[in-house]
Amino acid sequence: MSATYAHRRHAVRARLRENELDAILVTDLLNIRYLTGFTGSNAALVVHAADEPGAEQRTVFCTDGRYLTQAEAQVPDLARVIDRASDLELAKRIGAEATEHRRVGFESQHVTVDRCDALADAAGKADLVRAPGIVEKLRLIKDETEIEALRMACAAADRALADLIEHGGLRPGRTELEVARELETRMLDHGAAGPSFATIIAAGSNSAVPHHRPTDRVLASGDLVKMDFGALVDGYHSDMTRTVVLGNAADWQREIYELVRAAQTAGRGAVQVDADVKAVDTAARSVIADAGYGEQFLHGLGHGVGLEIHEAPMLSQRGDGRISAGMAVTVEPGVYLPGQGGVRIEDTLVVRPSTPELLTLTTKELVEV
Amino acid sequence: MSATYAHRRHAVRARLRENELDAILVTDLLNIRYLTGFTGSNAALVVHAADEPGAEQRTVFCTDGRYLTQAEAQVPDLARVIDRASDLELAKRIGAEATEHRRVGFESQHVTVDRCDALADAAGKADLVRAPGIVEKLRLIKDETEIEALRMACAAADRALADLIEHGGLRPGRTELEVARELETRMLDHGAAGPSFATIIAAGSNSAVPHHRPTDRVLASGDLVKMDFGALVDGYHSDMTRTVVLGNAADWQREIYELVRAAQTAGRGAVQVDADVKAVDTAARSVIADAGYGEQFLHGLGHGVGLEIHEAPMLSQRGDGRISAGMAVTVEPGVYLPGQGGVRIEDTLVVRPSTPELLTLTTKELVEV
Repeated sequence: MSATYAHRRHAVRARLRENELDAILVTDLLNIRYLTGFTGSNAALVVHAADEPGAEQRTVFCTDGRYLTQAEAQVPDLARVIDRASDLELAKRIGAEATEHRRVGFESQHVTVDRCDALADAAGKADLVRAPGIVEKLRLIKDETEIEALRMACAAADRALADLIEHGGLRPGRTELEVARELETRMLDHGAAGPSFATIIAAGSNSAVPHHRPTDRVLASGDLVKMDFGALVDGYHSDMTRTVVLGNAADWQREIYELVRAAQTAGRGAVQVDADVKAVDTAARSVIADAGYGEQFLHGLGHGVGLEIHEAPMLSQRGDGRISAGMAVTVEPGVYLPGQGGVRIEDTLVVRPSTPELLTLTTKELVEV
Repeated sequence: MSATYAHRRHAVRARLRENELDAILVTDLLNIRYLTGFTGSNAALVVHAADEPGAEQRTVFCTDGRYLTQAEAQVPDLARVIDRASDLELAKRIGAEATEHRRVGFESQHVTVDRCDALADAAGKADLVRAPGIVEKLRLIKDETEIEALRMACAAADRALADLIEHGGLRPGRTELEVARELETRMLDHGAAGPSFATIIAAGSNSAVPHHRPTDRVLASGDLVKMDFGALVDGYHSDMTRTVVLGNAADWQREIYELVRAAQTAGRGAVQVDADVKAVDTAARSVIADAGYGEQFLHGLGHGVGLEIHEAPMLSQRGDGRISAGMAVTVEPGVYLPGQGGVRIEDTLVVRPSTPELLTLTTKELVEV
C-alpha cells in the first residue's frame, strides 16, 4: 500500500504546481487517510511540491503520542513528528523554514475561522493561501485499491440481506428496529467494520418517508419494506436500497415498484463518461415524471461514495460537472405516496469507460417475501 | 421538553447581551440540538437577544425538506423555514431585516473560512461577529434532563457488562472483537441507540496500549482485559473503563490494579466545586507517581461528557478552569507496562454541591473472571 499512498501524494504535487503553491498543509482526517493510510483521530500532513516520489524528504506527518506505534506501522515511509497540536506544530515548522516568500495552501473548506488565525500565527513569514478541494478532487476518481474496498463493502451488504431473508428475518411480527439490528449484525459477520450509516428500515406507510429512522413499528403482511443500508470496509462506504413486499404485492405496489425499477435502469444507463450530472438525474426523473409521479420523487438521483457516505459528484439538478471513469456513485430513484407507502431502489456502481460496473448485486426483481 | 429548550435559549440571550450581540447564528448541529431538540443532519438557528421566553417571534429555525415533518414534531414552538442551505438562508434573512447597524454573532470555532465568506455575503449590511463558545459554555453545566440521559446511558453500559460476564462472554478462547461486539449488542438490549464510541477491548499485552482497537487476538487465561466503552442514549454519551483478570491475578497485576484504583479514588475525591482542573489531575497522578509509575500514566485524568464523548472541561495539566456543580466528567487514570499489560479504571460522574454523583455503578474491586 505504501506505493499507492506515495502515488497519491505525487498527484497532489502536480496540483500544487498548477496552483503555484510550494506546499499544502492537509488537516482533514479523511484526506490524510487518503494520502497516508493513517486512521487515527488526530493528525496533520505537509506535502511539498518540490519533493519526488521515493525521496519525500520535506513531506512531514504529525500525530500525538497515543498514535506513536500506529503511525510507525501505518506511515512508515514519511518523516513523523509527535505533537498533540499537529496542525499548529506543522505550521510552526513551515514558518521556521520559510527563508523566502512561501505560498502554503491550507484546506479553507475544512479549517475554521478561529483555527485559521492560530495557523497563520504559527506559520509566521509563510503565506497561508486558501486551497480548498485539492485532495477532494483527486478523491473523485477512485483507484483500484479503493474500488476493491467498495466492492467488499457492497458484497458484505449483499450477503447480509441474503442471509436476513434466507433465515426468515424479514417477517410479519418483527419490528423495524429488530430488522435493522439483524441486518447490521449480519454485515459484521461478512467483514464490515460497521454499518456505513444508520440503517433505514421503513415498513408500510413509513416507507413513504424518504429518510425514515427505524421504530418499534411491527411489520405486517402486505407491507412494502424499504431497506436502505450499507457496510463500511477499510474506510469505504457501500450504499444500497431494496424494497420488498411481505406477502403478495398489491397492484399499486407493483405499479410503483416497476416504475421505480425502470427509472433506476434508465439512470444507470445514463451514467456514462462525459455525461452531465444533471442529465443523469433527468434520465431517471423523466421516467417517473412521465408516469405522473414527478412530485413524488423528492430527492436527487444519487451521490458519490468513498471515504464519505455522501461525497462528490452529486447526481441531481443542483449538481455540477461531468461523469468521469473511476467515479463511484449511487443511483437511487424513489416514489413516495404519503400515508400509503414508497419504493426506492439503489445501487452503488463504478463508472467505467464503457458500461458502469455494478457493485451491489442483489436482485432488483420485485421480491415477495 | 419544550420548556427546557426555551429555558436554554433564554440563557443564550443573557450571554448575547453580555457580549453586546443583537443575535447569534447557530450552525453547529449539537448546539442546535441542545437549543431546540432537533436531531436531523442539516439545520441552522437564529436566536435574538430581544425576544422573551414564550414570545420568541424573531427566533427562527431552518432545515431542509427531508426534515419537514420531523421539524414540526421536534421544534413545534419556533418559526420554521425550509431551505437546503439553512445557514445561508438565515444569514440572508438577517441581512434583509438589518435596517440599522446590527451585530450578529457566528460560531467562529465551527464555521470554516470558506463558509464564513459565503455567510458574510448573504448577511449583507449586518455585521457578522466572532462569537465562539456561547452555547458550549452553557453546555458545560448539565441540567437534570441531560443528567437523566447520562444516567440511562451509564446504566445501559453497566447492565451490558454485567450480562456479558454473567453469560460467560468473557472467557479464554474468544477474540477481542467478539467480546466488543457482544458488549455493543448488549448495550442495545438495554436501550442504547448505539455505542458512544468504538469499544476498546484489549487483552494481555494489548491492554498496555491506551487506545487499542480490538483485534482477532484470542483472550487467554491470566490476561488482563481492559474494556473501555459506553452507550449513547438521547444523544448523551456514557464512558466507563473496567479492567479484569481472566483467572487468578498475578502479583504484578494486582499491584498495578490496586494502585490505579487508589489513584482513581483520589481523583474522584478531588472533583469538588471550585477545584482547579489541574489539581484534580494532580490528585490522581501523584498517587501513581509516588509509587514510581508516573511515566506509565500517559494521558490526562479525564474529560467532560455530554452531547459529545469528549467535551470541556479537560481534567489534565493542559486543562484550564475550575470545577462547577452540574459538570459531567470522567475520571480515568491508568498504568501501562509496555509488552506486559495495563490497567485503567474509569467512571462517569456528575459534580454536585457536596459529593459527586457516580453514574457508572459497576464494581471497582478487582474482578477475577
